Amino acid sequence: MKFIIEATDGESRAGLVYLKFGIVETPIFMPVGTHGAVKGIDSLELEKIGAQILLSNTFHLWLRPGLATIHQLNGLHTFMNWRRPILTDSGGFQVWSLKDLSQVDEDGVHFRSPINGDRLFLSPEKSMKIQIALGSDIAMTFDECTSWPISHSLAEKSMELSLRWARKSRDSFESDSALFGILQGSMYDDLRLRSLEGLENIGFDGYAIGGLSVGESKEDMFRILRKCMPKMPKKSPRYLMGVGTPEDLLNSVTLGVDMFDCVMPARNARNGYLFTKFGDLKLRNRRFKDDNRPIDETCLCPTCCPSNHGEKKIFYSRSYLHHLQKINEMLGAILATKHNLWFYLNLMREIREAIKQKKFEEFKRNFLLNRSRGV
Amino acid sequence: MKFIIEATDGESRAGLVYLKFGIVETPIFMPVGTHGAVKGIDSLELEKIGAQILLSNTFHLWLRPGLATIHQLNGLHTFMNWRRPILTDSGGFQVWSLKDLSQVDEDGVHFRSPINGDRLFLSPEKSMKIQIALGSDIAMTFDECTSWPISHSLAEKSMELSLRWARKSRDSFESDSALFGILQGSMYDDLRLRSLEGLENIGFDGYAIGGLSVGESKEDMFRILRKCMPKMPKKSPRYLMGVGTPEDLLNSVTLGVDMFDCVMPARNARNGYLFTKFGDLKLRNRRFKDDNRPIDETCLCPTCCPSNHGEKKIFYSRSYLHHLQKINEMLGAILATKHNLWFYLNLMREIREAIKQKKFEEFKRNFLLNRSRGV
Repeated sequence: MKFIIEATDGESRAGLVYLKFGIVETPIFMPVGTHGAVKGIDSLELEKIGAQILLSNTFHLWLRPGLATIHQLNGLHTFMNWRRPILTDSGGFQVWSLKDLSQVDEDGVHFRSPINGDRLFLSPEKSMKIQIALGSDIAMTFDECTSWPISHSLAEKSMELSLRWARKSRDSFESDSALFGILQGSMYDDLRLRSLEGLENIGFDGYAIGGLSVGESKEDMFRILRKCMPKMPKKSPRYLMGVGTPEDLLNSVTLGVDMFDCVMPARNARNGYLFTKFGDLKLRNRRFKDDNRPIDETCLCPTCCPSNHGEKKIFYSRSYLHHLQKINEMLGAILATKHNLWFYLNLMREIREAIKQKKFEEFKRNFLLNRSRGV
Repeated sequence: MKFIIEATDGESRAGLVYLKFGIVETPIFMPVGTHGAVKGIDSLELEKIGAQILLSNTFHLWLRPGLATIHQLNGLHTFMNWRRPILTDSGGFQVWSLKDLSQVDEDGVHFRSPINGDRLFLSPEKSMKIQIALGSDIAMTFDECTSWPISHSLAEKSMELSLRWARKSRDSFESDSALFGILQGSMYDDLRLRSLEGLENIGFDGYAIGGLSVGESKEDMFRILRKCMPKMPKKSPRYLMGVGTPEDLLNSVTLGVDMFDCVMPARNARNGYLFTKFGDLKLRNRRFKDDNRPIDETCLCPTCCPSNHGEKKIFYSRSYLHHLQKINEMLGAILATKHNLWFYLNLMREIREAIKQKKFEEFKRNFLLNRSRGV
């Protein structure tokens, strides 16, 4: 894996990540296709919306369709008909979210399948094996995630286990794909820095910040980010896992983050919650019942602007989307998801352009101001 | 409305129906967009799949979003972003399907809204008013549907009421759109012929056969069709409502039917039941788990053949579609619906071509033979 920084503006960076299945422009947002599908959106549509890299999940794909099928079908790219890069999460976070169903020891995690109750075991070695079988462009180390609040001593133990698993992940990762290490250490500055130091000693292609968005305040999250980001290797991509709102993305890019993933744009879309440049819009609100305007007049997404053939401007209106939400028609979820994903992807394109023009802070100020005005 | 018959082959006809929003080539299949949306498929995608005319429902759209919103938004075409013709069913069938919640008198049907329990009243005059507001290219007369079995005397009473309502529909239909009459009379030949005679005396732009697929046997259905079709006006389109399988469509075209609608291709798709030239395919079957072929190698639908850019052949495989069905991912329903709708629409294109070449019976024989072979 090669990472080139094309431009910087303050701590913000515009870069290129060279991966097996293509080049990714950073800062980048990765839509989430947990089970090998972004809910309601097929792979070719994702290409059209401008997705450059998807995130998928080792844990879920291991359970279904299973490793044998993925092997049989030559990996996840072919399986889901996706021709660009894929990053796979290691399964650590998903196993953690099973809570009482799982038991951790030095070697890995024993747990019951949430699908059929089977006894299963996931370890650093196993996770690497699955991610290699999936044909992931970027694999993640197998880590233990911690809830918040947690005591310093428990967080320390967990962080140290994650470091030992990171070493095992690295050692067993026999592949020419990229492997990223995941920082842990909860909300404790000292643990975060020790985690980072440990990961750097092992050496990875990129560094991710895990264990955030687990119940802490925004202040805690950004305190940790502000503490860690200046110490993270400048020459490697930095990936903030599972975050967040458009505002979170901007504020994190300010601190030097290069990569993001989050279920928020797609999940919110399914619930009729749309992002726009002029603030957010709750489709189910009665005031949109007879509103014949597009979600955002200036938006070029497939929902606001499905046709670019010089014809009369056509679009799916707020009233139509309101109606589809009210009758729980899946087309409503689909059209809203396309809009929100396009919004996130376009935001990253604009951020990148602003960094290259050394106008990131100006762009950010205007963006936040417009968003605060409301639709 | 103008109807031109371009070619005949036996009783089968290839024609053109000239409507406000465009020309429809018959024989035609109309995808069903009950609430102003074909489940999971947006209007531009429907254009791409080759849909020429959609069916939508007066009853459902009247309840939600309601007449005021439809008025406000300049009709259904604009509302749903659909630029081709629309046929609207009158609501008779839907009111009938409420059964115990409705009460019929000479003027119309009193019923309770299935959404909020409101007392509502639908009549021929009201149905016409709604269909005109929707901007329908083809409106349907308001009729009473009957269940099967039903006695001759009850079927006769109902048929006569439907005839009086057909007259009221005609008289109150102040619009330059087309209006079709609906034959009733249950499984009784004499009633069907009297219904037809009555409708012809009133005079409509087209004639539909309603009240089939309501619980009778296939034999009964085709007996009625064989009885009615030769007597129906040759110069008008003939529309068989709510039918059916690919085999039903072929056998009905043989008898001279020009237009069809049915929820079957979309509903079956959502349940993982796919139509192909080589028989049908139940996606959830375990044998497709590792099957890396497209649904049908010869199919050119957006699921089997999403790209026509001379690239390596790409497609969504049986194994991927199997997986999406197993995890109940809506993308599975979407990709399957696109395939099934394309299959139906393409079948009609092939039928039409065969009629024009006077090879319909040969086409039909081969088609049925291939289908009987199994995937």
